[in-house]
Amino acid sequence: MDDLTNENMMQVIESAEAIRQGHAQLKRPYYAANLFFENSTRTKSSFEMAEKKLGMDVISFDAQTASIQKGETLYDTVKTLEAIGVDVVVIRHGEDRYFDQLEGRVKLSMINGGDGMGHHPSQCMLDLLTIYQDYHTFKGLKITIVGDIQHSRVARSNAIALKRLGAAVQFSGPLDWMDPELMQIGRYVEFDEAVEKSDVLMMLRVQHERHAFGMTFSKEEYHAQFGLTAGREKRMKAGSIIMHPAPVNRGVEIADELVECDRSRIFKQMSNGVFVRMAMLQFVLQQREALKHEFVN
Amino acid sequence: MDDLTNENMMQVIESAEAIRQGHAQLKRPYYAANLFFENSTRTKSSFEMAEKKLGMDVISFDAQTASIQKGETLYDTVKTLEAIGVDVVVIRHGEDRYFDQLEGRVKLSMINGGDGMGHHPSQCMLDLLTIYQDYHTFKGLKITIVGDIQHSRVARSNAIALKRLGAAVQFSGPLDWMDPELMQIGRYVEFDEAVEKSDVLMMLRVQHERHAFGMTFSKEEYHAQFGLTAGREKRMKAGSIIMHPAPVNRGVEIADELVECDRSRIFKQMSNGVFVRMAMLQFVLQQREALKHEFVN
Amino acid sequence: MDDLTNENMMQVIESAEAIRQGHAQLKRPYYAANLFFENSTRTKSSFEMAEKKLGMDVISFDAQTASIQKGETLYDTVKTLEAIGVDVVVIRHGEDRYFDQLEGRVKLSMINGGDGMGHHPSQCMLDLLTIYQDYHTFKGLKITIVGDIQHSRVARSNAIALKRLGAAVQFSGPLDWMDPELMQIGRYVEFDEAVEKSDVLMMLRVQHERHAFGMTFSKEEYHAQFGLTAGREKRMKAGSIIMHPAPVNRGVEIADELVECDRSRIFKQMSNGVFVRMAMLQFVLQQREALKHEFVN
Repeated sequence: MDDLTNENMMQVIESAEAIRQGHAQLKRPYYAANLFFENSTRTKSSFEMAEKKLGMDVISFDAQTASIQKGETLYDTVKTLEAIGVDVVVIRHGEDRYFDQLEGRVKLSMINGGDGMGHHPSQCMLDLLTIYQDYHTFKGLKITIVGDIQHSRVARSNAIALKRLGAAVQFSGPLDWMDPELMQIGRYVEFDEAVEKSDVLMMLRVQHERHAFGMTFSKEEYHAQFGLTAGREKRMKAGSIIMHPAPVNRGVEIADELVECDRSRIFKQMSNGVFVRMAMLQFVLQQREALKHEFVN
Repeated sequence: MDDLTNENMMQVIESAEAIRQGHAQLKRPYYAANLFFENSTRTKSSFEMAEKKLGMDVISFDAQTASIQKGETLYDTVKTLEAIGVDVVVIRHGEDRYFDQLEGRVKLSMINGGDGMGHHPSQCMLDLLTIYQDYHTFKGLKITIVGDIQHSRVARSNAIALKRLGAAVQFSGPLDWMDPELMQIGRYVEFDEAVEKSDVLMMLRVQHERHAFGMTFSKEEYHAQFGLTAGREKRMKAGSIIMHPAPVNRGVEIADELVECDRSRIFKQMSNGVFVRMAMLQFVLQQREALKHEFVN
Repeated sequence: MDDLTNENMMQVIESAEAIRQGHAQLKRPYYAANLFFENSTRTKSSFEMAEKKLGMDVISFDAQTASIQKGETLYDTVKTLEAIGVDVVVIRHGEDRYFDQLEGRVKLSMINGGDGMGHHPSQCMLDLLTIYQDYHTFKGLKITIVGDIQHSRVARSNAIALKRLGAAVQFSGPLDWMDPELMQIGRYVEFDEAVEKSDVLMMLRVQHERHAFGMTFSKEEYHAQFGLTAGREKRMKAGSIIMHPAPVNRGVEIADELVECDRSRIFKQMSNGVFVRMAMLQFVLQQREALKHEFVN
C-alpha cells in the first residue's frame, strides 16, 4: 500500500466500480501464476477468479512441491516463471517485505497477496471499495477496527490507508491485543461506545491458532465482551455497516444471525474482492507501456 | 437421485446421448468449482472434463488447504464461492446428506458428487445411460449387482433407480455383504445363476480398505467364488453386458483379460460419465430461468 | 530420444524456432493431462505453458490422490484419461522405461516427461535448441558435461544425442561421479582444460539429496575444484556458452554473479523449454493422421 498515492487508491476503486458494472477483458491471452507459500484459499480463489474474468490463463503452481523446497531462492523461482512466459505473479509469503529481493530485478508484473505480518493490499483495497460504495467518501467517517490489532495485517494496512484518505480511525477490543505503534493513528475506545458511534465496525477474526480460548477468554466471554451481539447491533448508528475479513467465527466476533443481516457487508466484501483484484491486475499490467492498450473496457 | 422423477432421468439420458453425438456449449463463460472433500480423482477429472467441454472456467479448490480446515462451515465455504462469482459447485463429502444444510440457502447451482454412503447420482446416471445404449429400455431387464452391496453407494442408488424404471434387480456375492434394506427391492441369487440369466452384470469393487483379504477371503478365493472368470463369461447370456464402476481389481472381481472384452462396458462407462455430467450441468443451469437460453446445442 | 531419428530431432528444433518467432495454435480445443508421479514443478509448469499456448485445455491430475495410490495400474490410469477424452498425456515416472507397458496399447498421444534415471527427452531437446541457436550446427562442437554424470538423465540423453548429431562430447567433474558406459561416447578431461577449450560447458546440478556435502566435498571445495568461478569464466574460449538444467546451486556449480552473465544461457534454456515442448506436442499430435491439419502456424 505504501507504493500507492491517494490518487492511485481512488483510481483502483473507481476502476473496480467500473468493472463491477461493466466488464474488463484482455484482448489476447496473458499468463498469471499464483505463488501462495502460505495457505489462503479465499484470497487465492479470488485472484484466480479475477484473472480468469480478465481472460488470463492461469499456470498452476504448488508451493509444496516447488523447487523452492530444494533450496531454490524466491528470485530464481520468479525468474523461471518469467522465462517460461508468465506475465504476472501474485505472491503470498510468510516473510515480511519478501518483495524487496525482487523489486527492479524482474520484468514481469507482481502483486503482493500478503507478506508476513506486514501488508495485504488487495484486502485493504476491497475494504476501501466496500466503504466507498456506502459512503462515496472517506472524509470524516468514524471507523473502528475491533479485535487482535497487533497480529493483523488487515488492521495495519487499513488503518494507515483510511487515515490517509481522511477517515477517523479508532481501535477497540482486548487492551492486550492493541498495537502501540498504531495508537499514533487512532485512539482506543470502549467497545460499547464504538458500537454506538461508528459509521463502520470492522471486526477482526480471533485466531484460534494464536489465542487458545480458555487461556485468556472462553469463546462465550469474548463474545459477551467484544462480540457483536443482537443487542449491540440494535444500538448501532443508523446507516452504519459491519465488516469482517472472513472466515468469521460465528458466535464469537459476530452473532450467527448477524452475519448476513442488513448492515453486514461480509459477503459483499468477498464479491468486491474480485472486482478490486481485476482492477489491480489491470493497474500493474497497464504500468508496462506495451500492455496499455490491451484492455477492452 | 431422490429429487429426480423418472421423466427427469430419461431427460438426462436423452440429453447425454444428444451431447455424445453432437455437442453442447455455453454461449459465454460460466464458472465451476469442484469441492472434493474425499479423494476421487476419477469422478473429479470427469466433472472437470465435462465442465471444460461445456466451455466453463474451472476455479481450483483444494480441500486440504481450504478454510474449512480452520473450522469454517460448509455453508460459509459455498457462500464464499458464490460471492466471488462461481455459478455451479460439485461437492463430494463424507457426510451423509451434507446437502441438507445448503439446500434453499444458496443461489448457485449444486450437483452432488457423492455423499457419505448415501448417494452418487452421476455414477448412477452414467450406469443408466450405458444400459440404455445397449437395450433402449429398462423394462423387464434382469440386472444383477454383485459384491459388497452393503457399503456401496453405487449399489444403493442404482438398485432404486433401476427398479423405478422397471428393471428386475437382483443381488449376488458373499451373503454377509448383502444389505437387508435393499433386499426389499430385489432377491438374492447364486452367482452362477446370475451369470447365466442376467442381461447386465454389475460387478462392484472389493474395497481392500474395508475387507482385509486373508481374513474372510484370499483374492484367489474371492475370484473363484464371486469373480467373473473366463469360464463364467462363456456361460453368460447372449448379448448380455459386464459393468464395473472402476477402478477394477484385475483378477479379483474380473479376470484380467475380460476387462476390455466385447461384453465389457467398463471404459465406455467412463466415456459416458463425461456426457452424463455435461447433461447434469446443463440440467441444473437450465433450472435457473436466466440461464435457459445460454446453451448452443 | 531413442525413437527419434536425427531428422526428427532437427524437425523439432526447426519447428520450435518457427514457434518462437511466430506462433502455433490448435484450431479447436484439445485436452492434455500432466501425470507427474515425481515432483518437477519446473518441467510441469513448462509443459502446462506449452499446452496452454497451443490452445489446449489442461485437465488437472494430482498423482498424490490418484487411484494409482489404491493399486490401480499406470495402464488403467492412462486408459481412464483416454476414456474421458484426454488427447495427450505427459508422464513423469520414477520407473525406468515405464512407457513399455503403455506403448501400442493406448490411442491417445504420449510424451515422456522423464523416466527413472533413463530419459528426459524434452530437457534434451531444449538443450539442443539452445546450442543450435548459437552455432546453427552440432558438427565438430566441443561440448563438455560437468558434474554428477552417473546419476543424471540429462547427461545421458544429451551425450548420446549430441554425439549422434556430430558433436565431440567430453566429460569432467569428480572422477568417482563418471559413468563407465558413457565413457565410450567421450573422454574425460580435466576441468580447467574443459573450461578453456569447450564451445559449450554444460554444468550439472549437484544433488544434495545424493551427495551429502561434508562427506566427499564441502560446497566450497566443490566450487573451488569443479565450479565455474569468475576466474575460470575469464579463461573460457571466445564465444563459448554456459548451460545448466536448473535449479542452480548458486556458488556451488556456478558463481552467483555468473548465473545471468553474457555467456549464460540458463534462463534462455527455460524459455526454449516452452517452444520445444510446443513443438513436441505438435509432433505427436500430427503423427495421428486426423490431427495433421488442426494447427494454425
